[in-house]
Amino acid sequence: MPKQKSYKPGLDGVIATETKLSYLDVDAEEIVIRGYDLIELAQTRKYLDIVQLLLRGELPDEAQRSSLEQELKNEYDLPNRFFSLFSKLPKETHPMDAFRTGISALAGYEKNLNERGEEKIIQTSLRLLAKIPNIVANSYHILHDETVIQPKHELPYSSNFLYMITGKEPSPSEARYFDQSLMVYSEHEMPNSTFTARVIASTNADLYGALTGAVASLKGNLHGGANEAVMHMLLEGRTTDGFRHLLYEKLKNKEKVMGFGHRVYMKKMDPRAALMKEALRELAASKKREDLFEMCEAGEQLIKEEKGLYPNLDYYAAPVYYLLGIPIDLYTPVFFAARTLGLCAHVSEQYANNKLFRPRVLYTGPRGLHP
Amino acid sequence: MPKQKSYKPGLDGVIATETKLSYLDVDAEEIVIRGYDLIELAQTRKYLDIVQLLLRGELPDEAQRSSLEQELKNEYDLPNRFFSLFSKLPKETHPMDAFRTGISALAGYEKNLNERGEEKIIQTSLRLLAKIPNIVANSYHILHDETVIQPKHELPYSSNFLYMITGKEPSPSEARYFDQSLMVYSEHEMPNSTFTARVIASTNADLYGALTGAVASLKGNLHGGANEAVMHMLLEGRTTDGFRHLLYEKLKNKEKVMGFGHRVYMKKMDPRAALMKEALRELAASKKREDLFEMCEAGEQLIKEEKGLYPNLDYYAAPVYYLLGIPIDLYTPVFFAARTLGLCAHVSEQYANNKLFRPRVLYTGPRGLHP
Repeated sequence: MPKQKSYKPGLDGVIATETKLSYLDVDAEEIVIRGYDLIELAQTRKYLDIVQLLLRGELPDEAQRSSLEQELKNEYDLPNRFFSLFSKLPKETHPMDAFRTGISALAGYEKNLNERGEEKIIQTSLRLLAKIPNIVANSYHILHDETVIQPKHELPYSSNFLYMITGKEPSPSEARYFDQSLMVYSEHEMPNSTFTARVIASTNADLYGALTGAVASLKGNLHGGANEAVMHMLLEGRTTDGFRHLLYEKLKNKEKVMGFGHRVYMKKMDPRAALMKEALRELAASKKREDLFEMCEAGEQLIKEEKGLYPNLDYYAAPVYYLLGIPIDLYTPVFFAARTLGLCAHVSEQYANNKLFRPRVLYTGPRGLHP
Repeated sequence: MPKQKSYKPGLDGVIATETKLSYLDVDAEEIVIRGYDLIELAQTRKYLDIVQLLLRGELPDEAQRSSLEQELKNEYDLPNRFFSLFSKLPKETHPMDAFRTGISALAGYEKNLNERGEEKIIQTSLRLLAKIPNIVANSYHILHDETVIQPKHELPYSSNFLYMITGKEPSPSEARYFDQSLMVYSEHEMPNSTFTARVIASTNADLYGALTGAVASLKGNLHGGANEAVMHMLLEGRTTDGFRHLLYEKLKNKEKVMGFGHRVYMKKMDPRAALMKEALRELAASKKREDLFEMCEAGEQLIKEEKGLYPNLDYYAAPVYYLLGIPIDLYTPVFFAARTLGLCAHVSEQYANNKLFRPRVLYTGPRGLHP
């Protein structure tokens, strides 16, 4: 029997790994990304800058950024044969399951699958970052009998991603808010999906396998999926009064209200939520949907008064995605696409300094039985 | 910063969960399965008995066993549309990747996908146990342009599995040794793949997702894959002298020799390896391949003398699978098929008493940078 008889269920508070990538500073309520405050990055930089920062360790200069953008554009496309896979799936397939199947299958096209050197892993990561928006958007279109929307190579990364989902080129402000949402979803220390990816990678399994496992993790409604649940609540509430009524009912029935609080931190509002709240305010004004902003703010107020809980990122990302025209079923796949960045960086770090994850158990069953 | 500044890389020796399912008693070198010694079970019982034991908590009586067998037979088949998926994969796809894609895609056909109650999870587990041998065998056949081999419903579980792989009905002794190998591979406490499955399931993700992640984990050559590596070494060695020479060369070059030792235990020979060694002795005699048995024994002796290490299960399972006519690329998928049982039991236990896995990190990067 391992000596330590007590243990922390869910590894709550247990340090599972060293990392130079990111850290939740619970006291300062700061999300540290390689030394930078994620919110400062999101206010002043673009998603591609964080790609360079997380994968290569430094923010890019102008030349590096445009070379990175070109590398990604060169890899936007997917083989036609790959798309035909989705037409073989039952129509009832959950979007996250179709997406998971797609990433798993894409491994068969990867020439660097067995490489583990840092530069090769960065190349593979960039290829995945380039292609995953295409998989997200078009697995959805194919399962809904819609036409495949091929990427537009002249569009910047985030604009092209949004275009492949909606079929419309976004306005500069739409593109900017979407890009900002990708930044704030890109990396967040050691949530379950990141832990899953590192655990899998520690067997020396490939990056596609690690990401496939992470998609499976993010599908669970205790992890991803909260942004979708928030939007369904908002649509069910319809008006500010209706939404307040619905929240009161949920509190009365002791149901969990999605979009509030966080396991590790949040004695005030999630700083990422605050950023998305401002994006929502501006998008709502430009689209004459101030009512949606008011509903969200009323819900925020109500849950703070009644439960002392603050909104997390999902609470304000959901209505932003709604106003950007993203189908609700795609909110979690889009979250995953953004997080692909953090996941690839963690897998690369795991390979560089690896120790197989293999914990022990506290056995509470019988002993000494004979068949 | 979390208080605990030191940590155990790879969670070495850390208790990650409670379980009533199994336990490695390192001192007694016993693999405890719900109170029974796995080796005693493997000597006196069949794989189906362990299915009932792990999933339902008790060994079956005669009537329960035949009802279980019938339940599995009813679920042997896969939809034709499902098979067509594999013809869409590039021919270069690794067998474990094709298999992973198959399990992921099968989720779209599962009517109980969103159920988490214990009885429903057992039903889903049995469906997976019935269909996974079919996926293992036929994903391989399709990728190799061979004809799909449909299951024979009149054959018992293990015989049908081996038949779908080789296209030949096994003899009673072949079926028995294969069944024994499935038993000894069925469950082994908290290896990386089982941990992966529990971590994923803790988000309330479904069983297919948890298994998909576990396949990804088992593909890594620090976890699964050792049985395949052993067989390639044996074939490269060709004769006892050749094999001894090859092992000496590996030791001289400080290469890792697969098939020996274990992270958690093994101060003597893996008791599962001892069982497979006896199976190999008998199979080799009946197939006039005593030379293969001698090679293995010579390798065992050499590594014990030179390194003080003992063979693990993979070392003797590999040549057994070879003599049973299983293609080497399928050794790890077959291992996974057997382990599906333990994985399903662990996921079911996780759902019944869940706490989200969400550990912390030791952050070693910079602070206070500004973009």
